[in-house]
Amino acid sequence: MVDKIKVSLLGSTGMVGQKMVKMLSNHPYIELTKVSASPSKIGKKYKEAVKWIEPGEIPENIADLPIVSTSPEDHKDVDVVLSALPNELAEDIELKLVKEGKVVISNASPFRMDPAVPLINPEVNWEHLELLKYQKSNKNWNGLLVKNPNCTAAILSMPIKPLEKMLNIKGVYITTLQAVSGAGYNGLPFMAIDGNVIPWIKGEEEKIPREINKMLGKMENGTIKQNNLEIYPTTIRVPVKVGHMGVINIVTQDDKINEEEVKKLLKDFTSLPQTKNLPTAPKRPIIVLEEEDRPQPLRDLQYYNGMAVSIGRIRAEKNLLRLIVLGDNLIRGAAGITILTLELMKELGYI
Amino acid sequence: MVDKIKVSLLGSTGMVGQKMVKMLSNHPYIELTKVSASPSKIGKKYKEAVKWIEPGEIPENIADLPIVSTSPEDHKDVDVVLSALPNELAEDIELKLVKEGKVVISNASPFRMDPAVPLINPEVNWEHLELLKYQKSNKNWNGLLVKNPNCTAAILSMPIKPLEKMLNIKGVYITTLQAVSGAGYNGLPFMAIDGNVIPWIKGEEEKIPREINKMLGKMENGTIKQNNLEIYPTTIRVPVKVGHMGVINIVTQDDKINEEEVKKLLKDFTSLPQTKNLPTAPKRPIIVLEEEDRPQPLRDLQYYNGMAVSIGRIRAEKNLLRLIVLGDNLIRGAAGITILTLELMKELGYI
Amino acid sequence: MVDKIKVSLLGSTGMVGQKMVKMLSNHPYIELTKVSASPSKIGKKYKEAVKWIEPGEIPENIADLPIVSTSPEDHKDVDVVLSALPNELAEDIELKLVKEGKVVISNASPFRMDPAVPLINPEVNWEHLELLKYQKSNKNWNGLLVKNPNCTAAILSMPIKPLEKMLNIKGVYITTLQAVSGAGYNGLPFMAIDGNVIPWIKGEEEKIPREINKMLGKMENGTIKQNNLEIYPTTIRVPVKVGHMGVINIVTQDDKINEEEVKKLLKDFTSLPQTKNLPTAPKRPIIVLEEEDRPQPLRDLQYYNGMAVSIGRIRAEKNLLRLIVLGDNLIRGAAGITILTLELMKELGYI
Amino acid sequence: MVDKIKVSLLGSTGMVGQKMVKMLSNHPYIELTKVSASPSKIGKKYKEAVKWIEPGEIPENIADLPIVSTSPEDHKDVDVVLSALPNELAEDIELKLVKEGKVVISNASPFRMDPAVPLINPEVNWEHLELLKYQKSNKNWNGLLVKNPNCTAAILSMPIKPLEKMLNIKGVYITTLQAVSGAGYNGLPFMAIDGNVIPWIKGEEEKIPREINKMLGKMENGTIKQNNLEIYPTTIRVPVKVGHMGVINIVTQDDKINEEEVKKLLKDFTSLPQTKNLPTAPKRPIIVLEEEDRPQPLRDLQYYNGMAVSIGRIRAEKNLLRLIVLGDNLIRGAAGITILTLELMKELGYI
Repeated sequence: MVDKIKVSLLGSTGMVGQKMVKMLSNHPYIELTKVSASPSKIGKKYKEAVKWIEPGEIPENIADLPIVSTSPEDHKDVDVVLSALPNELAEDIELKLVKEGKVVISNASPFRMDPAVPLINPEVNWEHLELLKYQKSNKNWNGLLVKNPNCTAAILSMPIKPLEKMLNIKGVYITTLQAVSGAGYNGLPFMAIDGNVIPWIKGEEEKIPREINKMLGKMENGTIKQNNLEIYPTTIRVPVKVGHMGVINIVTQDDKINEEEVKKLLKDFTSLPQTKNLPTAPKRPIIVLEEEDRPQPLRDLQYYNGMAVSIGRIRAEKNLLRLIVLGDNLIRGAAGITILTLELMKELGYI
Repeated sequence: MVDKIKVSLLGSTGMVGQKMVKMLSNHPYIELTKVSASPSKIGKKYKEAVKWIEPGEIPENIADLPIVSTSPEDHKDVDVVLSALPNELAEDIELKLVKEGKVVISNASPFRMDPAVPLINPEVNWEHLELLKYQKSNKNWNGLLVKNPNCTAAILSMPIKPLEKMLNIKGVYITTLQAVSGAGYNGLPFMAIDGNVIPWIKGEEEKIPREINKMLGKMENGTIKQNNLEIYPTTIRVPVKVGHMGVINIVTQDDKINEEEVKKLLKDFTSLPQTKNLPTAPKRPIIVLEEEDRPQPLRDLQYYNGMAVSIGRIRAEKNLLRLIVLGDNLIRGAAGITILTLELMKELGYI
Repeated sequence: MVDKIKVSLLGSTGMVGQKMVKMLSNHPYIELTKVSASPSKIGKKYKEAVKWIEPGEIPENIADLPIVSTSPEDHKDVDVVLSALPNELAEDIELKLVKEGKVVISNASPFRMDPAVPLINPEVNWEHLELLKYQKSNKNWNGLLVKNPNCTAAILSMPIKPLEKMLNIKGVYITTLQAVSGAGYNGLPFMAIDGNVIPWIKGEEEKIPREINKMLGKMENGTIKQNNLEIYPTTIRVPVKVGHMGVINIVTQDDKINEEEVKKLLKDFTSLPQTKNLPTAPKRPIIVLEEEDRPQPLRDLQYYNGMAVSIGRIRAEKNLLRLIVLGDNLIRGAAGITILTLELMKELGYI
Repeated sequence: MVDKIKVSLLGSTGMVGQKMVKMLSNHPYIELTKVSASPSKIGKKYKEAVKWIEPGEIPENIADLPIVSTSPEDHKDVDVVLSALPNELAEDIELKLVKEGKVVISNASPFRMDPAVPLINPEVNWEHLELLKYQKSNKNWNGLLVKNPNCTAAILSMPIKPLEKMLNIKGVYITTLQAVSGAGYNGLPFMAIDGNVIPWIKGEEEKIPREINKMLGKMENGTIKQNNLEIYPTTIRVPVKVGHMGVINIVTQDDKINEEEVKKLLKDFTSLPQTKNLPTAPKRPIIVLEEEDRPQPLRDLQYYNGMAVSIGRIRAEKNLLRLIVLGDNLIRGAAGITILTLELMKELGYI
């Protein structure tokens, strides 16, 4: 294929970076040609710079790539820069690349709430990419910046999107049980979390409501009018390696909620990525499980290669709808939506 | 001391049974004189019949006691029978003992919702023991039966009791993260729960609201008028050995909740067991923790030998009060409240 | 393909059974046509009888198969019966099938040490299948019985086979660190093994030396002359789900052992399954890892779909050779070698 | 008591430091009066500088002590400086203190193999303290330096000491299963070790033989003549929080080893700390367990407050003696022997 999209990857040796390396290794039209990592690794071969933890070998075409810096000159000959940078490093590096004309799609938190920057979870709000039409002039940038949401917000927003249209929601009370990988490979010592549960995750409870409300916002006159759902998350770290779970209590103004209609709504939920049959899009973004003890991180992360979320324990009682959602925080919550966003941008002509 | 209360213990070799053996080993006025276990163990010495898992040695005065049966004739010369029987075995055995005149205090679930039987979490509803005045005539029993609540209901009811009086509660939305020991020593295989989270516990979600509402009920004319709080628990098993956590969202009719008043109310909560200075009563039944990442099972189960619950992350916002409670499911949720109930019954003259 | 080998599977719903179901689901010339399980499941569809724990869905062609009994009449129209039965049930069931003329290849322990029964780890001792020529007459059986070794013996024998020829071994001192799945899905409660190490596995330390010495034996005049290596294993259960590790200390009569030659010997080890390019055979049965902190269960079980063992920390010092071997106890130690044995029997004309 | 020994503690906020704080909190004649920690904590109160992980509260008399530096002037008014410093920081700091006249007892690795410095595991080689008589002149120091061994060497040397006298040992082949706390609180990320086993611990395999051989050495003419046992350890990290286990294979020149004599020898082993009834000395330094599945970290760390090691699976066969030893790496392997060494030095008049 003559015209593959060439991409580079910032933060390529981290956990999310490794996932992207793997997912891109046999992509039909995206080609990873440059890998970047922290300064001390520049110049080394990828296979020497990375502590590879994915099952299977490092993809052959990547293993010997030299690590490059994050400076714009090292990303000249790629079409798009993907970023799996840590939040605290991302702002300056990404801004510099965008100012110098690069298209950057990023997982990191800075700029997520910037009104000029689309915060994209593809099935939920692909239409927000329209912001890109005005971004260069609004921001005086030469390139483009697209953000993906926080991993937990990405997973929770999947069922909330269709439910928000169906129900008159008064309040959403959520408890999350989040995997240790969400804090990074070195994020939590064994001594702290093994056999334990830590009922607080730094910064997480602020991000979730505001990011979901931005994603649920409507495009109006070239800007996003944010939603104002009352969302109250309590976020808890549990000794699980991968998989973020959300226990969702939705209190509505409705007298009676039809459980079967809710199940059907969720099962049938599809969006543009499905219609356009994008390569990384799950056929069904939401899997509804009927077994009473599901979803479980150990059993339910593999649907559509981790790109679908699974939902169980759907129960309606009076004005209350309860359900439990589970998603792969590294794939559906990070690496996968970045790649899906790129596919979407190509499909819609932004690249 | 001449007149110690002599007790026997049903289910003495299980996890809760072992806790009681240990707690009673140096009690000022309760003496464990008989230990019972399953038929195959009858006649063996306790130390041979038990797979002892408590830290430290088996108390000396118990180690050589012979295991007796559950038949009334084997419990003739004790004043009270304590029961840590499995739920599925308890009904027939306990009923037989009560009919034949024994005073039985039990952790097992049968009869918990019987209107004639007090369901006691001492600090929460000690006054329900008044039911015992009418129990013999109501049930045509020769003995007495007192029940302790489900372990999770016991822990959750501690903060709900004072809060229910302070706030105009519309709904209580709870997610529990429950330890594996709650299912018994052999309750969950390592292959099923290690590195996993199972979002369902058999029977648990039904018990919690009904038992709490019974405990929060008022004595009126010799019967309990149950409360009708709207309580919606979602119960989840996590790979933790001991310690049940409840994430509590209380939606109220109040406009504004004073966080500091809530903290003070909880910190200062005491009840009859404290006033009477009962030996097993914690000086403060509720410990309020200010650190943002507490309570944790690994750090916060030891207050007052496991008899206090700890509460953290108290947050009020508009009409919503959120808090997290943690308690030792084997002590505060089981062995400890049985013993404390016995102390209470003695104090109030029921024994 | 007209003439696929039709097989049935005993113990098809257990962990090893599920592995076989999965491995056979797209085998080039073996077709699983009957699945058997415990009496209470007979008649149910496989998908209803099994608690499926393998990642991914139950293979379509198996999901709706009805569970059959273990009686010979239920296995009439298959060519071979594979057995993943629990040890304590296997003897009678397998014997009955063999007497009535079936070819049985089994993972279970009974008959492993029977002189007339080949105990096959394909790369190690494929030539022992010759015993089958005399088995019917020796045993007065109408069918044939082939056994696979204990999972730990299977993994340990892989490096010992080539090393035993190279070195003059005086004693082999082994410590194993064995995964919980080796005890079956329900084999160990979480409360017993989480955060713990149990330095004893029932029956294991007796099986390892005798099974390895049988496998290392020579065919002489239609019988196996067993080897007599001095092997001393201490077997330990560790809180790992899959992967048995062996820390091997080989004391030799040699003055000096050439570490590089050992590495080369192990890396280059191949046997008949490789020469004949059998479908389930790993291209290299032994992977030698050079990193100082490998092999690890979390990283090193996937080579050749779990059919290769990995070896690290090879160190020679004076008369001592040390190395660490790791293998997938469910695949290389069980399901995989049963299938590979069947392929071998076909190749050699025993089927 | 007028004349308590006043001590300061370097590294007081680490895991071993916290253990010492706790163990010293009600010592009959040692008083902790100064606590030191890393520069950023100097001046803070101990309770603000420490992330306390021990069960129970910080001892009252320590909680408000201000953190001091490691400079000699901050340790002027104490009799002894105890050190729980990290290995990489210890050399310079401890040397400076010793040169300026302090008596330092340290857990850290530098100087352990210095011929002028006693490496003390009290029951094993208390008589090596005699080196102190010559240390000042040999080293030109104004103070004294005493070292404690590596935690694993401390635990392993307990049974090896008496066995080395009883048997004619040719080689000792050891596999260790070591707890994560041995690497420090932040030593291993959950993602790396949970559900895993890592067969290598940096630096450990070199330290064990040389430190044991120094401890087993004989005092001759004011110097230690080291032993030369052939000890070959393979050290493995396992997902256990506390407790180092050693699987020991001792190959001897003896034809036949009497298992019962070995058990008696180990059970009866005592040394000067027992004879002198030192406060921290376990009555029996070695507990022999007869159950086939012991010792286990979850059950067998509590003997004599963690100061005894437990030994199980003692088996003699021909010229091979096998046994498994387990000890608390933070107490018997670190904090406890430092305090016991101080008690010993007082008893013998070195302080």
